Amino acid sequence: MQHFHKEGSITSVKGIKAAGIFAGIKKKRKDLALIYSEYPATAAGTFTLNKVQAAPLLVSKEALKKSSHVQAVLVNSGNANACTGEQGYADALEMQKYCAKKLKLKQDEVLISSTGVIGVKLPIEKIKTGIDEIIPSLTHGGGYDAAKAIMTTDLTSKSYAKTVHLSGGEVTIGGICKGSGMIMPNMATMLAFIATDASIEKNLLQKLLSGAVKNSFNKITVDGDTSTNDMVVLLANGAANVPVKKDSEDYKTFLAALTKFCIVMAKSIVSDGEGATKLVTVAIKGAKTEEDANAVAKAISNSPLVKTAFCGEDANWGRILSAAGNSGAEFDPAKASIYFDDLAILKPNYDIVLDEKAAKEILIKKEYTVTVNLEAGKTDSTWWTCDFSENYIKINANYRT
Amino acid sequence: MQHFHKEGSITSVKGIKAAGIFAGIKKKRKDLALIYSEYPATAAGTFTLNKVQAAPLLVSKEALKKSSHVQAVLVNSGNANACTGEQGYADALEMQKYCAKKLKLKQDEVLISSTGVIGVKLPIEKIKTGIDEIIPSLTHGGGYDAAKAIMTTDLTSKSYAKTVHLSGGEVTIGGICKGSGMIMPNMATMLAFIATDASIEKNLLQKLLSGAVKNSFNKITVDGDTSTNDMVVLLANGAANVPVKKDSEDYKTFLAALTKFCIVMAKSIVSDGEGATKLVTVAIKGAKTEEDANAVAKAISNSPLVKTAFCGEDANWGRILSAAGNSGAEFDPAKASIYFDDLAILKPNYDIVLDEKAAKEILIKKEYTVTVNLEAGKTDSTWWTCDFSENYIKINANYRT
Repeated sequence: MQHFHKEGSITSVKGIKAAGIFAGIKKKRKDLALIYSEYPATAAGTFTLNKVQAAPLLVSKEALKKSSHVQAVLVNSGNANACTGEQGYADALEMQKYCAKKLKLKQDEVLISSTGVIGVKLPIEKIKTGIDEIIPSLTHGGGYDAAKAIMTTDLTSKSYAKTVHLSGGEVTIGGICKGSGMIMPNMATMLAFIATDASIEKNLLQKLLSGAVKNSFNKITVDGDTSTNDMVVLLANGAANVPVKKDSEDYKTFLAALTKFCIVMAKSIVSDGEGATKLVTVAIKGAKTEEDANAVAKAISNSPLVKTAFCGEDANWGRILSAAGNSGAEFDPAKASIYFDDLAILKPNYDIVLDEKAAKEILIKKEYTVTVNLEAGKTDSTWWTCDFSENYIKINANYRT
Repeated sequence: MQHFHKEGSITSVKGIKAAGIFAGIKKKRKDLALIYSEYPATAAGTFTLNKVQAAPLLVSKEALKKSSHVQAVLVNSGNANACTGEQGYADALEMQKYCAKKLKLKQDEVLISSTGVIGVKLPIEKIKTGIDEIIPSLTHGGGYDAAKAIMTTDLTSKSYAKTVHLSGGEVTIGGICKGSGMIMPNMATMLAFIATDASIEKNLLQKLLSGAVKNSFNKITVDGDTSTNDMVVLLANGAANVPVKKDSEDYKTFLAALTKFCIVMAKSIVSDGEGATKLVTVAIKGAKTEEDANAVAKAISNSPLVKTAFCGEDANWGRILSAAGNSGAEFDPAKASIYFDDLAILKPNYDIVLDEKAAKEILIKKEYTVTVNLEAGKTDSTWWTCDFSENYIKINANYRT
């Protein structure tokens, strides 16, 4: 049994405090977030696959490897500390070290993360002053402020919490995340920080997180770009005193709940994609292999021609089929069928059953599902994408300057 | 020695006639083109790799396989005859057959091609009436009209001709082509019809065309989509009585000239890409393998974030490096350097030498080159792309309706 909190954030989880403040990295808005667990937590992470990896990722990956427990995650927005060379790496280490010292933790018990502009030196002094200021601000309701402080071009802050009933009692999953350009599988400029008060051993926690991310954050796309800084972190601090054990029924329940939680977060990122006006679920059915199912879903989700048609509320199934045909997947286009929600648009043998008026009623909605049945096998995959609007261009043509 | 004609088209080639007329497939503009060789010509073609292949492609591929010579290419715009099933295939055959009969040729001596909207039945009666009308319109200056008749969202028609001096005398290469959405390697919705009056054996002609296309049409991208209808066709009718033979010096000269010709055509397609305001040459140097060089060039050329930065005239080298990092190519980002024309922007070890004012002077131009040196090997590759402007969205959000 699962239950989403109407309100909720990462601080809905027992033993988790957070804060978000303005430290002068951005011009005006909050730009420094701290998440703190009152108890040592096991930690897991997934990171961008971009060859260009920002300094804070290298530092956090190293910490996760070395340390059995983590107690804090420090995040700044406004500067990605990416492509900053040796100085950037030194700054990232200094950020971690200073925060650890002030929290009276070991250096590797603090994870760090940065998001924002690439190739600009991190203003480390501002961050240190910010650390001095943020630690006394930590509260049990501070998740919302932390969610605000990690935003870049996001229009809304993103906080979620959810209760999961396990055999040993109730646990909470809470988290904050941000998008919203460069969103593409394998961690695009998106950050998600999730905590739970369940007790979960470190390797098992990584397995749970990887499993959940595979079917959520790794199946969303805004513009096909993958950033240098993306990470998802999951902390489990055991404060609820409810264990999740290997190969148990609770494990399955928790994995399902965590996946659902990550899908909610992932969809919130897509629907707040730069310039997005639609959230479209792309459901691929009947692929020959999982690889094919994902290739077709990805090709459709990333096609600028498909995404501009979504924007124009145009029932352009030809672009959808053509994008599928470009994916490299094995299928016979003559066998394919396409649906918008439950409305059939194309049936096998190019039987075009599109009713323009009925299709329009679906396409004007803010959320709908495009289903493509390939009739090539038994594998399905569901992705989430948004439309491509003129605002995407406006936002991105002048982001840096 | 090569020389581009100031004016010129496919009909600049000896023995080639052409025409372009309005046959009622589009609402107003010319929509039917015919290219006719007075002498039987050897023919070669390259076709889209999309799994979804339009009926005319299937018909033309079959004809190229079966027939030793070709004398005509019939092309309509306004309707792609793609995703039209068995009826579409029958219509394509009928289009070819009727044209051949009227020209007193064998059916497989006529190639056909279609471009336009997908999934709408071909108006075959209009095309047949059009064939009756276009044949008497064929002239030795009709290449320009033919170029107009194959346009879809192109803003300008595209005609080129070029003289090549070979040991046996002078030959001409002439051609027409069209873009301009869905432009992406492996034949995007782009059509190019090229003729030469050199005498070239069929298999050698295919080798020449494939070699030229590989380094021209297959290295351009407008939006990363690849269409269902794309083809490049090359006819050689021998009217100049100058042979190009295997393993000869002339072969090398002709291949170089044909490649240069195709690059000019390909660049004209990119610079007329939907909504494009910039033509950017993406030069990758020092890749480990050819595959890597192309992967990096493609990733940069297709990245919406890079392309919107080009549009905004923003020296956002971070997005360029990040796109390279997403390509899957093997390289160390810390060793990479980036140039805009001859101006260094990023030197190895993340040494940012960007002079914003000098960079702006380059970025405001309509044409410039971005060079990325990976320092990972000895392979180079040059691609061409355009920027992503708000007009791209406007054009594509409502193309079909």
